[in-house]
Amino acid sequence: MSLDPKTYKPEHFLWQFEEGVGRVALNVPSQKNPLTFESYAELRDFFRELVYIDEVKAIVFGSTEGNFCSGGNVHDIIGPLIKMDMIGLLKFTRMTGDLVKAMRGCPQPIIAAVNGISAGAGAIIAMASDFRYATPDAQTAFLFNRVGLAGCDMGACAILPRLIGQGRASELLFTGRALGAEEGERWGYFNKVVAEEELEAEAMKMAKRLASGPTFANGITKNQLNMEWDMSLDTAIEAEAQAQAICMQTEDFARAYHAFIAKEKPVFEGN
Amino acid sequence: MSLDPKTYKPEHFLWQFEEGVGRVALNVPSQKNPLTFESYAELRDFFRELVYIDEVKAIVFGSTEGNFCSGGNVHDIIGPLIKMDMIGLLKFTRMTGDLVKAMRGCPQPIIAAVNGISAGAGAIIAMASDFRYATPDAQTAFLFNRVGLAGCDMGACAILPRLIGQGRASELLFTGRALGAEEGERWGYFNKVVAEEELEAEAMKMAKRLASGPTFANGITKNQLNMEWDMSLDTAIEAEAQAQAICMQTEDFARAYHAFIAKEKPVFEGN
Amino acid sequence: MSLDPKTYKPEHFLWQFEEGVGRVALNVPSQKNPLTFESYAELRDFFRELVYIDEVKAIVFGSTEGNFCSGGNVHDIIGPLIKMDMIGLLKFTRMTGDLVKAMRGCPQPIIAAVNGISAGAGAIIAMASDFRYATPDAQTAFLFNRVGLAGCDMGACAILPRLIGQGRASELLFTGRALGAEEGERWGYFNKVVAEEELEAEAMKMAKRLASGPTFANGITKNQLNMEWDMSLDTAIEAEAQAQAICMQTEDFARAYHAFIAKEKPVFEGN
Repeated sequence: MSLDPKTYKPEHFLWQFEEGVGRVALNVPSQKNPLTFESYAELRDFFRELVYIDEVKAIVFGSTEGNFCSGGNVHDIIGPLIKMDMIGLLKFTRMTGDLVKAMRGCPQPIIAAVNGISAGAGAIIAMASDFRYATPDAQTAFLFNRVGLAGCDMGACAILPRLIGQGRASELLFTGRALGAEEGERWGYFNKVVAEEELEAEAMKMAKRLASGPTFANGITKNQLNMEWDMSLDTAIEAEAQAQAICMQTEDFARAYHAFIAKEKPVFEGN
Repeated sequence: MSLDPKTYKPEHFLWQFEEGVGRVALNVPSQKNPLTFESYAELRDFFRELVYIDEVKAIVFGSTEGNFCSGGNVHDIIGPLIKMDMIGLLKFTRMTGDLVKAMRGCPQPIIAAVNGISAGAGAIIAMASDFRYATPDAQTAFLFNRVGLAGCDMGACAILPRLIGQGRASELLFTGRALGAEEGERWGYFNKVVAEEELEAEAMKMAKRLASGPTFANGITKNQLNMEWDMSLDTAIEAEAQAQAICMQTEDFARAYHAFIAKEKPVFEGN
Repeated sequence: MSLDPKTYKPEHFLWQFEEGVGRVALNVPSQKNPLTFESYAELRDFFRELVYIDEVKAIVFGSTEGNFCSGGNVHDIIGPLIKMDMIGLLKFTRMTGDLVKAMRGCPQPIIAAVNGISAGAGAIIAMASDFRYATPDAQTAFLFNRVGLAGCDMGACAILPRLIGQGRASELLFTGRALGAEEGERWGYFNKVVAEEELEAEAMKMAKRLASGPTFANGITKNQLNMEWDMSLDTAIEAEAQAQAICMQTEDFARAYHAFIAKEKPVFEGN
């Protein structure tokens, strides 16, 4: 049975749904919204489920009370991990990786609205999104190194270099230092820096714009962006020829054509 | 029989040739230079043929009467496509992809001189070039999304992230929004912004500089840039050891050495 | 028998070692520190050996008397190369490529401190490092094209596009033009521009910071940055799950946790 976005009530994060856009946000603001074993698992299950929920056409991953996400909770997650055997550790790192796979694997574009702290796995969630908006004071830290770990967490050594280049990604991952919003925009990490009072509205506006677009085709765009990055150039071009031919059989393509001829704005339906 | 660049007369685009540099430009300025089925096919055949035309050492893909290329013509291309079956659609998307493969596959570096509008397949032609120069008012739009299609057209999901990063490429491909010249330069999409009256001369100057260089070696550079992007690091380094050893057996390498010893400027011959 | 960093005396470059940081620099300042067959080979052997030298935790590749490295010596290297047969040429290009493989293959992060000229193979050495600091007047030139060769030297067509994007890399490799420090910082090639009198101290400070971090985990970060760039997204995420689970069994991870609980600064030991 598929999840119904209108009645969905997750236990470990906030959920709102309107006009085809779902809003997800963590909600333990007293600790800057950390992740726990439970919220990791529920988020993973939610993003996996999204593949089948056509009504949800775009996602905003928002902030709560001034912060995005402080990463894995020290007491709830790091404490247990240092006592765990390899079987348990790998089960954990695979679960966290599965959250990123699910975020990249759903057809809906995800817009991270990053206010305040985005650290550790919190930085990863923003990194794994399709768009990133930030407030001027947002602080992003891939801080794994500072807790004794490697920078290769949940796909960071693969995804971050493709967002900001290998040299800048190396610096962030080897040092764990904070990345500010302006610097992040200059580097292509953030798509836009937005005043705090407008952050969520701007992210929602972009999400609704995407949700009113040709959403089947958007899902194909996302899929190709994922699939092509280790294809050869010629293979990627052939893959796009096939993918775009599929999109040319959608009604949305015909709708755009007829609207153009009639000098009207097309109304897309995602099919 | 190979094409003779001195007498070549394409039907669907402009062609000029001097000092080893060929200039290509579309030429329906009343419609901002759209592509048609015929010009796609003729451009594809031309760039495929270039592999065998040693006299042509660099290409400028220029603008005509204030615009670069407005993409696939709505009446001539999009109209027929919405009535086509899958066999026909795939034949079309493969032909357009074959143009990009041919532009990337020829050894000559291609310099796009982008004035005014560069939209849809017009943006792709600039993207698939090796250098991009733009006028301050140039407008680039990967607008596939706005006509109901996916952003994965003619290699865009593979090539654009490698030019400007995955985050900025995602924004352009999911929204179809226009990219301005200054922003495009800041992002690494355009190599240079040039005043309108100097655009074609600047592009031609760079093309002639490349044409007077070690052009056999330039072709190897282009080939390796294409081939290595999905190689492992170690494989790429071995591939370059082989490719550069080949270039070390050219006369141009010896010419540079002897010129250096004689304190002269080397004169390269592309062999 | 492993190299002892405290007594190591290379013949063809300078070596200093303190607080876990080794400093390497070429030392023929009258010629702006060129490479020779002998220094190439000794550097390759040194970086290969570093895999087994746990005491060395980070490397600074520094400048000598105002310059970083002018590349392959014209008389000592280029002269002999133009007389060599293919067997000899390939032996040479493989040796130079092996230096880059060894620099990328050692677990220690390498910080290039680039003063003055960094040209040809000198630019490659900086490119192959993990961090790049430059003085305001530093000049970087991937000048292979200007000596009649292709831009694909020692991994440049693979690594440079991942640092600065394919469009900017194409320009540097097709023209061989000099890249200035400010432009290089703007493009993400240099991590930082530092006043000449502070360059070596700043590089050393970062190296010591990295050397006092969780150095086993740093080596894993470097390894994953190398290995993942031609993995698929899903494969990279699984590879990181395994790599990070390994790091979660180190004492450094536990040290960070206990320090956090005790509100102290963790002291890492690299195990």
